[in-house]
Amino acid sequence: MNAVGSTAASVPVRGVDGLDAIMRRGGESLRRRMEQIELHLGQVTAQAGTPLASHAATVTAGGKRLRPLLVVLAAESAGGPPETPDGEQRLVRAAVAVELVHSATLVHDDMIDGALLRRGHPTVAAVAGRQMAAATGDLLFSRAFAELARNADVAQLSALSEASSALAEGELLQREDAYAAHVAVERYLRRCELKTAALFEAACRLGALTAADGSPELAAALVPFARRIGLAFQMLDDVLDVSGPVERTGKSRGTDLLDGTVTLPFILAREREPDLAQFDLASLGGPGGPGQAEALCDRIAATCALDEAREQALTVVAEAKATLPAILPDGRSELLSLVADAVVERYR
Amino acid sequence: MNAVGSTAASVPVRGVDGLDAIMRRGGESLRRRMEQIELHLGQVTAQAGTPLASHAATVTAGGKRLRPLLVVLAAESAGGPPETPDGEQRLVRAAVAVELVHSATLVHDDMIDGALLRRGHPTVAAVAGRQMAAATGDLLFSRAFAELARNADVAQLSALSEASSALAEGELLQREDAYAAHVAVERYLRRCELKTAALFEAACRLGALTAADGSPELAAALVPFARRIGLAFQMLDDVLDVSGPVERTGKSRGTDLLDGTVTLPFILAREREPDLAQFDLASLGGPGGPGQAEALCDRIAATCALDEAREQALTVVAEAKATLPAILPDGRSELLSLVADAVVERYR
Repeated sequence: MNAVGSTAASVPVRGVDGLDAIMRRGGESLRRRMEQIELHLGQVTAQAGTPLASHAATVTAGGKRLRPLLVVLAAESAGGPPETPDGEQRLVRAAVAVELVHSATLVHDDMIDGALLRRGHPTVAAVAGRQMAAATGDLLFSRAFAELARNADVAQLSALSEASSALAEGELLQREDAYAAHVAVERYLRRCELKTAALFEAACRLGALTAADGSPELAAALVPFARRIGLAFQMLDDVLDVSGPVERTGKSRGTDLLDGTVTLPFILAREREPDLAQFDLASLGGPGGPGQAEALCDRIAATCALDEAREQALTVVAEAKATLPAILPDGRSELLSLVADAVVERYR
Repeated sequence: MNAVGSTAASVPVRGVDGLDAIMRRGGESLRRRMEQIELHLGQVTAQAGTPLASHAATVTAGGKRLRPLLVVLAAESAGGPPETPDGEQRLVRAAVAVELVHSATLVHDDMIDGALLRRGHPTVAAVAGRQMAAATGDLLFSRAFAELARNADVAQLSALSEASSALAEGELLQREDAYAAHVAVERYLRRCELKTAALFEAACRLGALTAADGSPELAAALVPFARRIGLAFQMLDDVLDVSGPVERTGKSRGTDLLDGTVTLPFILAREREPDLAQFDLASLGGPGGPGQAEALCDRIAATCALDEAREQALTVVAEAKATLPAILPDGRSELLSLVADAVVERYR
């Protein structure tokens, strides 16, 4: 699990049992495609002579490759890539582009948070400083579009640039909402859609668009599924920030709250304990902040808001599965269902 | 000179006499196109309901619009946009996309440098913090590609994504070279090409590609011109950082040196005063740094390196003009020559 280019081809999806199961059941074609994606990701980031090379491992190693997996499954659901000389390459490029955009946001997030570790590796910001991290993120964004441009399909480029805009808008909304203890649940859900679900959605659209009979209809049919599992993914991630345990998340509980970010557990808790709505999140900014944030996490947990938030996320996952078109070929509907389950699995 | 959307349409290119002259001589079509670009830039950044709206003025107000001007002049050199219903719109979108990428890099640069003012306006980082600045820059990048994707031309998207990659690579190289007093002049010039010239080049390519007879040949013919004036622009910008005066640049002398960035004046000075090659730039990191950096600027100036650097840049500008194809229609060659002169003018 070191640099992507050197070892990862043998372990394209890791760390989540459900994803391993998908790889086993997806057959030879899925395994081969995920390997190709891993190799190509390594090539793009480790391109000889570019300064990005030295950060390749830091940038993309160790990811679950959930988004590339969605690209491939969506493509296979739409009949698989065409049997043209570059049919497979086009699919691989689309998947790599999505993962590069995702990686770019992680590098920038770590720069902003001053995070030292990501997926067990030192972050670019930690290794090389904030300036390098800013430029590395920008380069990953640019390479994503350069990579996808090679597919010469404007619909694909639109899908990616819209998602990429949505991610940044989600970040901006979250900053606007900082320290607002009263933020509405609708606003929270909107942020999740922008920040996370939009790229899941783009992954499915891109996959369908690279398929032989990449009908816009099928791409559109997968969008509600993708949006919902993206939403559930973010909701559960936010639960984990409050619930911990530290050994599992690798970070202290309540980092979102410290950052002024109000998420679903807090929103649900304040309905059960109205005093919480008056809580001054900015007061966590002092030296005792981390301890106070953990205490606030305990208060939230005591209201049973975590269970309710988990339940809501599971409902969204169930809805996601229900939207899957029955027409999908060759067990692909089942595999997409398993992806939905894998999103949940981490949080059980 | 407030928000772009409200006032700028009347003053599309400002602050540099040479650019004003170009606007006067470019005729009604040039003036109208630059106005449309300004309006559209305002619409994109001030889009209702998006968080970017509140930073619109901060992000794009007050720019010289040199890159959009190159897009338009290149398009006019190639026969102007086609007389289709969206011919003008396609040109405007290309110009806006280039300026958005440029703005994105400025927002990120200011975030990294902690700069408070840009073009006389408070920076996004100063107004809203680093997190907002990071997300705002990412959003500007994404919007640039989303905007250009509407032109449905893969060659245009490739031109922009390659330039955008180059900008980030230039930043990364500059960081890699930080505090290296011995950096080679070839490496410095390469950085300038990536960091600055690539986007000038993309502007000309995009312009030619949006034209009615947007032949790849003409786009290619303008590239050497664009690359050279971009290079000269950066070289002269680097002279200004050492020469000042403060009243003109709005920042203290030697900020590049404080940042560990070795540029042409230092490189030329160390050839004349070899002791400089031994200078420990990291020593400027202390509290007395700004004063020491100014003293270092004086040492550089005393070697006449500034005059030589200016001369070299002027030679590059002359070369740029010499590469202009004589075949350009209707005085467009002369106007592009004037752009080259305008690049220099700021530094006289």
